[in-house]
Amino acid sequence: MSSAPLPLLAVTMGDAAGVGPEVIAGVWQDERIHRICRPMVLGQPEIMRRACQLRKVDVEVVEVTSVHDLPTGPALPCLPVSKDGLLDVRPGTSDARTGEVAFQAVLKAAEMALAGEIEGLVTAPLSKAALHAAGHDYPGHTELLADLCGTPRFGMMLYLPPGVANHSPAGLGVAHVTLHTSLRKALDMITVEAILEKCELANNMMRRLGVSEPRIGVAALNPHGGEEGLFGDEEIKIIAPAVEAARTAGINATGPMPADTLMIAARDGRFDAVVAQYHDQGHIAFKLLAMHSAVNVTLGLPIVRTSVAHGTALDLAWQGTAETSGMVAAIETAAKLAVSNRVAL
Amino acid sequence: MSSAPLPLLAVTMGDAAGVGPEVIAGVWQDERIHRICRPMVLGQPEIMRRACQLRKVDVEVVEVTSVHDLPTGPALPCLPVSKDGLLDVRPGTSDARTGEVAFQAVLKAAEMALAGEIEGLVTAPLSKAALHAAGHDYPGHTELLADLCGTPRFGMMLYLPPGVANHSPAGLGVAHVTLHTSLRKALDMITVEAILEKCELANNMMRRLGVSEPRIGVAALNPHGGEEGLFGDEEIKIIAPAVEAARTAGINATGPMPADTLMIAARDGRFDAVVAQYHDQGHIAFKLLAMHSAVNVTLGLPIVRTSVAHGTALDLAWQGTAETSGMVAAIETAAKLAVSNRVAL
Repeated sequence: MSSAPLPLLAVTMGDAAGVGPEVIAGVWQDERIHRICRPMVLGQPEIMRRACQLRKVDVEVVEVTSVHDLPTGPALPCLPVSKDGLLDVRPGTSDARTGEVAFQAVLKAAEMALAGEIEGLVTAPLSKAALHAAGHDYPGHTELLADLCGTPRFGMMLYLPPGVANHSPAGLGVAHVTLHTSLRKALDMITVEAILEKCELANNMMRRLGVSEPRIGVAALNPHGGEEGLFGDEEIKIIAPAVEAARTAGINATGPMPADTLMIAARDGRFDAVVAQYHDQGHIAFKLLAMHSAVNVTLGLPIVRTSVAHGTALDLAWQGTAETSGMVAAIETAAKLAVSNRVAL
Repeated sequence: MSSAPLPLLAVTMGDAAGVGPEVIAGVWQDERIHRICRPMVLGQPEIMRRACQLRKVDVEVVEVTSVHDLPTGPALPCLPVSKDGLLDVRPGTSDARTGEVAFQAVLKAAEMALAGEIEGLVTAPLSKAALHAAGHDYPGHTELLADLCGTPRFGMMLYLPPGVANHSPAGLGVAHVTLHTSLRKALDMITVEAILEKCELANNMMRRLGVSEPRIGVAALNPHGGEEGLFGDEEIKIIAPAVEAARTAGINATGPMPADTLMIAARDGRFDAVVAQYHDQGHIAFKLLAMHSAVNVTLGLPIVRTSVAHGTALDLAWQGTAETSGMVAAIETAAKLAVSNRVAL
């Protein structure tokens, strides 16, 4: 095993006006990263140089043209995805230009991953507003990557690596049945099929992350889990049948459980993954448990993709103080999944 | 101040098959309680005797008939609310009889508080199923007490006393715009008026708890706070106008804020209270922050009422191991509010 090459990972720069560049620069001097993978950046070399300067990271940013001319040694290889190498970076004011560059980086990374040139991609945050301003109508990375990969069954998982909070030894994941949609629309999207799909996706991901039989806790939708039908019947009509279907499919699923008690149980190590019914149900818990170390993992893709769980943080960007532990965790998780993929093949 | 008598508080026994009796017995030997109030129990003396025995609490349970014949010294005074003093306690199987006794205790406590015989009431958990089985159709204590007091504007606040988590020096509260109803129905109950009412109730309560100008954070409903209308328009049409109305009414309200980031900000001490739009939004966060020490405070009542935030825990009951810190916090908070009420008069 020790003679196997480290996995090559692409890290997209994200929105140039946000915290992405400085967070990437910040992790480059973290020895842990270079022991587990060979990372390269997709973005703009000039922006990465400024970010390294800002973070006082003494590393040479080398412009590369492909995975075939990567430098050896401690340099930071950056593959430019836009000709506008001198793009003005205006922190706090992301616009169509930063949105376009962020989009192109994801496009290129997905292409390289699908072609097998890299073993995984790690994305820095982009701005949805800037993405829209550039004419790309996606709610976020997850949906964009699913589209680029032609994946109909996909999902977003927030993942806390082992040791971050008091939880399962393989870490703790939360998959979301619905995500970037209004709560009102989400209610109509919660079906037996959708819940079962997320149970399967979460189960597969936790197996890849090292759990042989993941314990999946499925959240209720209504307060007190619907209190036996007093506060809504989705638990009886939809969620319980979905859990039953998951169990029939060989998944160790439990639920529906009232969301507030489920999150405590998950924190205390009684589950490896949680299936949340909507965005905030999972995000409130996971951000409170480990705001800075949470990793966003895309489920169902034919390629490995992780991300930091935070946003562009335009109000903090380019001050050189952005927290880097999320990017460290995202790269570590991608490297782990890339190696796990090799074994599976 | 030091010569003022300690406030007399009634503690209802809750469902006899649940953890209520043993939790009350457990706190009786806590010196802190007796330094800040004079507590009495409403329930069944025989059940309280068994609970004291279970917890090895060496205190005499004295049956009393009113607040006028309370014992002096370390005894535990218990006012019986049911003639069935030998009710069988069957842990884990609460039924109509335990529901009826729990109901009668709340009825009696409210009556005594409204008559000025006690300065506040603290409730141990009851079982909604048992309450319903006994023919009392209330979702919980909060609605029952509002009915008994004839209060149309009321609410439930979860409250973390100071020092429990990393938050505001006067503690941290979360009020709920909607509570014991399905999420689907809750969506239709979120109105400008309902949010404004909860801002006012939370503001008043935090003032009584010692904050001169409470900082109130109002949660968004949709993911990312609706992302400027992309994921729902309740933030634009309902929540933002409600926050504006609250500010016009002199309340230091902020929002709508994405719920996941708001909870982090509140945890970090940037707010004194949060207004959550629905049950789980508040409960997921507050139970994760301090499961055992959270206090349930009823807003808007003419009387002081607090409760533990946990339920009957039938699976743990009568094993003598139930955590008592929630009851300690509930009694401390009621005592504080009772004293604050005297000053206000």
